[in-house]
Amino acid sequence: MRKRFHTRAKKIGLPAGSLIHIGEKLTDKARITIIEYDEYYSKEEVVEIHDYSFFREKPTVTWINVDGLHDTKIMEQIGNIFNLHPLILEDILNTDQRSKVEDMGDYIYIVLRMFYKSEDKNGIVKSEQVSLVLGNNFVISFQEKPGDVFNPIRDRIKNAKGRIRKAGADFLAYCLIDSIVDYYFIVLESLDEKIELFEDALACNPDRNLLLDIQNLKREMIFFRKFVWPLRETISLLERSDSTLIQESTNIYFKDIYDHIIQVIETTETFREILSGMLDIYLSSVSNKMNEIMKALTIIATIFMPLSFIVGIYGMNFKYMPELEWRFGYFMVWSIILAVASIMLIYFRKKKWL
Amino acid sequence: MRKRFHTRAKKIGLPAGSLIHIGEKLTDKARITIIEYDEYYSKEEVVEIHDYSFFREKPTVTWINVDGLHDTKIMEQIGNIFNLHPLILEDILNTDQRSKVEDMGDYIYIVLRMFYKSEDKNGIVKSEQVSLVLGNNFVISFQEKPGDVFNPIRDRIKNAKGRIRKAGADFLAYCLIDSIVDYYFIVLESLDEKIELFEDALACNPDRNLLLDIQNLKREMIFFRKFVWPLRETISLLERSDSTLIQESTNIYFKDIYDHIIQVIETTETFREILSGMLDIYLSSVSNKMNEIMKALTIIATIFMPLSFIVGIYGMNFKYMPELEWRFGYFMVWSIILAVASIMLIYFRKKKWL
Amino acid sequence: MRKRFHTRAKKIGLPAGSLIHIGEKLTDKARITIIEYDEYYSKEEVVEIHDYSFFREKPTVTWINVDGLHDTKIMEQIGNIFNLHPLILEDILNTDQRSKVEDMGDYIYIVLRMFYKSEDKNGIVKSEQVSLVLGNNFVISFQEKPGDVFNPIRDRIKNAKGRIRKAGADFLAYCLIDSIVDYYFIVLESLDEKIELFEDALACNPDRNLLLDIQNLKREMIFFRKFVWPLRETISLLERSDSTLIQESTNIYFKDIYDHIIQVIETTETFREILSGMLDIYLSSVSNKMNEIMKALTIIATIFMPLSFIVGIYGMNFKYMPELEWRFGYFMVWSIILAVASIMLIYFRKKKWL
Amino acid sequence: MRKRFHTRAKKIGLPAGSLIHIGEKLTDKARITIIEYDEYYSKEEVVEIHDYSFFREKPTVTWINVDGLHDTKIMEQIGNIFNLHPLILEDILNTDQRSKVEDMGDYIYIVLRMFYKSEDKNGIVKSEQVSLVLGNNFVISFQEKPGDVFNPIRDRIKNAKGRIRKAGADFLAYCLIDSIVDYYFIVLESLDEKIELFEDALACNPDRNLLLDIQNLKREMIFFRKFVWPLRETISLLERSDSTLIQESTNIYFKDIYDHIIQVIETTETFREILSGMLDIYLSSVSNKMNEIMKALTIIATIFMPLSFIVGIYGMNFKYMPELEWRFGYFMVWSIILAVASIMLIYFRKKKWL
Amino acid sequence: MRKRFHTRAKKIGLPAGSLIHIGEKLTDKARITIIEYDEYYSKEEVVEIHDYSFFREKPTVTWINVDGLHDTKIMEQIGNIFNLHPLILEDILNTDQRSKVEDMGDYIYIVLRMFYKSEDKNGIVKSEQVSLVLGNNFVISFQEKPGDVFNPIRDRIKNAKGRIRKAGADFLAYCLIDSIVDYYFIVLESLDEKIELFEDALACNPDRNLLLDIQNLKREMIFFRKFVWPLRETISLLERSDSTLIQESTNIYFKDIYDHIIQVIETTETFREILSGMLDIYLSSVSNKMNEIMKALTIIATIFMPLSFIVGIYGMNFKYMPELEWRFGYFMVWSIILAVASIMLIYFRKKKWL
Repeated sequence: MRKRFHTRAKKIGLPAGSLIHIGEKLTDKARITIIEYDEYYSKEEVVEIHDYSFFREKPTVTWINVDGLHDTKIMEQIGNIFNLHPLILEDILNTDQRSKVEDMGDYIYIVLRMFYKSEDKNGIVKSEQVSLVLGNNFVISFQEKPGDVFNPIRDRIKNAKGRIRKAGADFLAYCLIDSIVDYYFIVLESLDEKIELFEDALACNPDRNLLLDIQNLKREMIFFRKFVWPLRETISLLERSDSTLIQESTNIYFKDIYDHIIQVIETTETFREILSGMLDIYLSSVSNKMNEIMKALTIIATIFMPLSFIVGIYGMNFKYMPELEWRFGYFMVWSIILAVASIMLIYFRKKKWL
Repeated sequence: MRKRFHTRAKKIGLPAGSLIHIGEKLTDKARITIIEYDEYYSKEEVVEIHDYSFFREKPTVTWINVDGLHDTKIMEQIGNIFNLHPLILEDILNTDQRSKVEDMGDYIYIVLRMFYKSEDKNGIVKSEQVSLVLGNNFVISFQEKPGDVFNPIRDRIKNAKGRIRKAGADFLAYCLIDSIVDYYFIVLESLDEKIELFEDALACNPDRNLLLDIQNLKREMIFFRKFVWPLRETISLLERSDSTLIQESTNIYFKDIYDHIIQVIETTETFREILSGMLDIYLSSVSNKMNEIMKALTIIATIFMPLSFIVGIYGMNFKYMPELEWRFGYFMVWSIILAVASIMLIYFRKKKWL
Repeated sequence: MRKRFHTRAKKIGLPAGSLIHIGEKLTDKARITIIEYDEYYSKEEVVEIHDYSFFREKPTVTWINVDGLHDTKIMEQIGNIFNLHPLILEDILNTDQRSKVEDMGDYIYIVLRMFYKSEDKNGIVKSEQVSLVLGNNFVISFQEKPGDVFNPIRDRIKNAKGRIRKAGADFLAYCLIDSIVDYYFIVLESLDEKIELFEDALACNPDRNLLLDIQNLKREMIFFRKFVWPLRETISLLERSDSTLIQESTNIYFKDIYDHIIQVIETTETFREILSGMLDIYLSSVSNKMNEIMKALTIIATIFMPLSFIVGIYGMNFKYMPELEWRFGYFMVWSIILAVASIMLIYFRKKKWL
Repeated sequence: MRKRFHTRAKKIGLPAGSLIHIGEKLTDKARITIIEYDEYYSKEEVVEIHDYSFFREKPTVTWINVDGLHDTKIMEQIGNIFNLHPLILEDILNTDQRSKVEDMGDYIYIVLRMFYKSEDKNGIVKSEQVSLVLGNNFVISFQEKPGDVFNPIRDRIKNAKGRIRKAGADFLAYCLIDSIVDYYFIVLESLDEKIELFEDALACNPDRNLLLDIQNLKREMIFFRKFVWPLRETISLLERSDSTLIQESTNIYFKDIYDHIIQVIETTETFREILSGMLDIYLSSVSNKMNEIMKALTIIATIFMPLSFIVGIYGMNFKYMPELEWRFGYFMVWSIILAVASIMLIYFRKKKWL
Repeated sequence: MRKRFHTRAKKIGLPAGSLIHIGEKLTDKARITIIEYDEYYSKEEVVEIHDYSFFREKPTVTWINVDGLHDTKIMEQIGNIFNLHPLILEDILNTDQRSKVEDMGDYIYIVLRMFYKSEDKNGIVKSEQVSLVLGNNFVISFQEKPGDVFNPIRDRIKNAKGRIRKAGADFLAYCLIDSIVDYYFIVLESLDEKIELFEDALACNPDRNLLLDIQNLKREMIFFRKFVWPLRETISLLERSDSTLIQESTNIYFKDIYDHIIQVIETTETFREILSGMLDIYLSSVSNKMNEIMKALTIIATIFMPLSFIVGIYGMNFKYMPELEWRFGYFMVWSIILAVASIMLIYFRKKKWL
């Protein structure tokens, strides 16, 4: 989940607006889907590159979805048709953008990050940049690769479920953002599961690997948080926007997304606090273990050092040692040994070391 | 007290405003109570679902209380009668809302969290979401399950105690919120009791379980705080609201609640600081214990190692060892042993290790 | 210095404005003193409850001082005479208020906390809530018990010292607040003395009790700070107030108090930083002690373990051990022992362990 | 990368606007390059000091680049020709400036810090102050020494690549700032590489030098951050500037730089969090090592102390010790020894110490 | 460098504006110097107390410098002549003021703290309060004792260097503040030198005294910072002031001071971060030392405990011990001893403990 900012180096010295795709190439061929709809009909088709300009005049809402960003020629063409500013095109191609919204007058540019669980390998959380261009009667969405996050919206358009067919392009943009934000809760869920796992591990067997795991999780959180925080401001700007492209009745929907974002942020902060609590527990576990080890050592030493001394005394070779001659000397020594050991054990028990 | 945000996953892909109850089902059957009152009379009845629309025209104040949220049909019906926006209905059903207030023009929607001590099991603190819809002459309150938090208000209405019968629907809303916030002090009390308990435990016998208890308490606090903080803004918005639904004379009452919330927040912050102080004390207790153990070990070793060496010397089997033949050798060795041990003990006493 | 928020529980379910005294009863009988003055004369009398309403019309300034809050009947009476809002009366009686100011149009309500050193027992810092009601020609002050904090002001009024007799009720309110804030410096002084004491203790003999003392001081500071912080905003509101009750020429005096409050807050923050520095020193002292103990142990063990081994060798009973027969064997062993011990000591000295 | 603020001492007592070069002399002789261009032609020449005043009237855009700041005579001359305020000249010469922008009406002064990797020695990151003066048809740039950071811009002007030849002086200023900010990503890249290196070292062999390295990196970060943070505000001021010197169409380009700065700042903050995580891991590694050492000691002591005691017993010289006479006594002792050792080992294994 | 806030206690109960000097008496007799100048001439004289009132009408700029504050009679006189508000006079005499600026209409009051290195004893950093009163054609400066910080300004006035003689009283005030702020860089320099010293000490020999030194430095920093932070706001208020006493052309000079203050603050913050980094290094050094000590102990114990056991075995007095009779038994034991010791050493080397 590491950020690849160093790929920026490619672009040093180039004039602003140079179209260079920054990021991994996640799909082979860019695919463009067009969905046209109004209250009474809807049509979906996969198209080759051609002239979309007539969409600009149509009374219906048009959703143009582009999967794959590496084909800069297509990008340039779309840019020309819809009059996109070169810097906006550049931002669409740089896949390490911070969430933001730019009101360009004729259209609004929105960029945000989509998180999802990959289906094949152990359900790792992956992320991808999604750019949206909202015009008066169209929405263009750019994804790094084809995905099924937007499928439910396609269904809703086809089946005329909910408000979507009756509302304008701004409502479509809302739906797209909403479905992306909904997926954040899945990331939270996966983080939560890991935290619970670590908590159990912490309770029974805290070792150094756990510490590394906790630190890794912390880092994933930092990465996730880095993308979610700016989204707060982004959506807030959309909600309070005075652009004519967003109808007043849609504002409350953006407010709803805003509330979800706040919830995501707060949960992330809670997780952070829980994780630092876990670190404290881990560190004190290590101290406790040390204490236990030291106790064991001290008990053994405190018992056997005096005893070794006692038996050492009667190992001396002095000619005149009265006890050695005494018949019950040996048994007496054993008695002393047992007495000393018992006293020590009682003392330790009293001190709660045993 | 863990948050169940993952239940959100149920809703992924659904259009906004889909009525799905998110949360545990805390009661069997939704129960609806209606209280109508003005300065001169009051009436309370439990009703089945029917048409409440005539309430909208009545000059009296009407309080509709709904216990149990899982029956989405009732919700839909209420939504239709009172013209509630689908997103508001959705928020009422999602029981993991952050406190907030939405001024919808015709009505104001307020959501907040109620905390209370359960009566049956050891008085654990439980929480529940309460939604309020304040119209010009009605208040609708939605609870997850029947509870007695609002009973004193019912009594006040019945017996015409205080201002309540003379005032409008906004004052009723104030009373409901006030009684919820009053219960926060009970949570604080219970947290305070636990802190005191832990302090006593820390003074006499700090062990690892105490650490875990402190961490758990810290987490409860994080959870509690998460709900209280946004309430500050919520109430502040109500107080400074320019809605015609809230009369000017009621503002000072909301200001009063605001002061209470600030007090709850400040007390929570104080508790947090006290808890981290306790953690510091715990950790230094562990260090102190270690120091004590190490001291014991060092004292024993420092006394008996030299003594063992001395008796070891006279255990050697050299043919020519003059002391062995000497008549008082054995007693001389004992004298040396006692002298060494005494010197050591005096030294330790001087160093304050004993 | 613990906060008694749980007494709030008494009030759950009661209508707002219910007059219940929350706090300890610090005096037996409420005592009411009235001081009337203008530029030319002043009069002071202790009165029983009676009708003060004529004061409202008088051209002189009247200061009504109430010591003792538990007699709710008096409170109610005063409330009626001066038209105080029930919520204000409630706030006066709740002695766990946060500092605040409420501009009620006809009068301004100010609540703050007074700190003072009790004279009898070891000069412990105590605190008490003071409420002020500032009208156009009167000030009512409510104290929990009789005290001498305001005596210098009484003297100034009697002797016409300074501006006080020439100025209005707002200046009197300023004088009362100023004398309360002046006492905060005494609390700071007492905290400073304790810190110095702890610093000396830390330098010579850091033990666990010191840690607990530091933590207690930290907590006192938290408590003190909790009351001082909101005062900042309170005074700032007074200074910038556009109420007609406060003359423009008095503003600079409130600004002066504001500066004092800032100084108190900054000193408190400095103390906090000093205290955490002390905690760090304490913890590293504990580590240092441990290091010393471990060094002692290691030195003893490192010297005597090899020596014991050497004498152990010649304690073996093998038939053929040439050294044992050798005439100077015993002296040779002593030479080896002394050599080993010397080498070890030199080594430790070089390592700076001795 | 240490700041040289103490060189300021040179200037104490001098009147403001005294031209004294503060900083290292990084080049021998100041070199001045002039580039003139408009949409149709461009010209570059290296000039000696002479009268540039006629540039002020020309319709073309002029870029005057000064490499080397120590020649205060040149500075004074430029100051006179372009009417620069003495304080601005002073700021250009003080090479420890914080990034800032000053709108002086006739011209805008911008100062910022350039970071680059030196080519000769191990690619250390170096930094240098760059000052820009933007007039209505000219930009003056001041560098501490000749560098190739601006070369791509020279190329673009020569070859009329991008918008640059068609746009005004404000766009040139943008291009210069943009190319400086682009280089920040190289610093981030180098920091990132070091962090990765340290992470690997932390995983295999954490020693004290690593700690010092981490601390040094932290300090480099503090230094870097200190220059980047104020840049945020600087660029934001430029973007929102209402100066007539900056055309509206250029604002979006400054917004683009602003986004980059935010990204740099966020990455720096992320690095800081990662570094403190590494410190935590380092410290717990040290504790773990200690635990391991103590375990080793405890195991050895716990096994051999009892065994030494046992063999000590049969080294005693009592006359009547029945076991000594017993034929299989010696073998019995060996059995006991092996049994004790085995039990101990099993116990340790069970406790997971082995 | 400890603050003497407790001297405030002197003033409790006194009316506001009572002139009492709070602070140490740093000079014997107050000395008043008057400098009059305009573009064409300048005059300096040391005066006794007399009537300065005619200065108020003069067209020249007058700078009245008062060294020594304890003579409250002089203060009162000056207060009367220049119509200073009693609270301003009080602030001048309280030498524990926080930096601030008060615009009183006829004059502006500025108070700030001057830091300087004393010349006689080891160059300790000392501090002193400076108050400035800026009128339309005069500046009054109050210092606690005579000092040479302002001498360069006197020289500039005498010799008509720079703008000073051509500008008004506001520029003089600027010059005084500027020379005070310039001295802050000397404090930073001295702090920086100490930090470097401590860093070297930390690298070679970290002991407890170093920790105390670091903590003391931290405290000096807290003290220094406490005075510098509010200065930021003070100067910012001066710069943005709409008072007629400050000409527009002077604003840019105050902006320059503001930039210096920001630089001082940022450097202080950097120092704080460096100091906490040093604390971390110190603490880990202590841990490392402990690890080393424990290693030594463990190595010795692990080698000699088994060896002592071996020789103990052959010290037993069993009748039937075949090895004892064996001719090469003794040499065999030596071989075993050497083998065990070697294996141990190899093992430790492999574990990198040696």
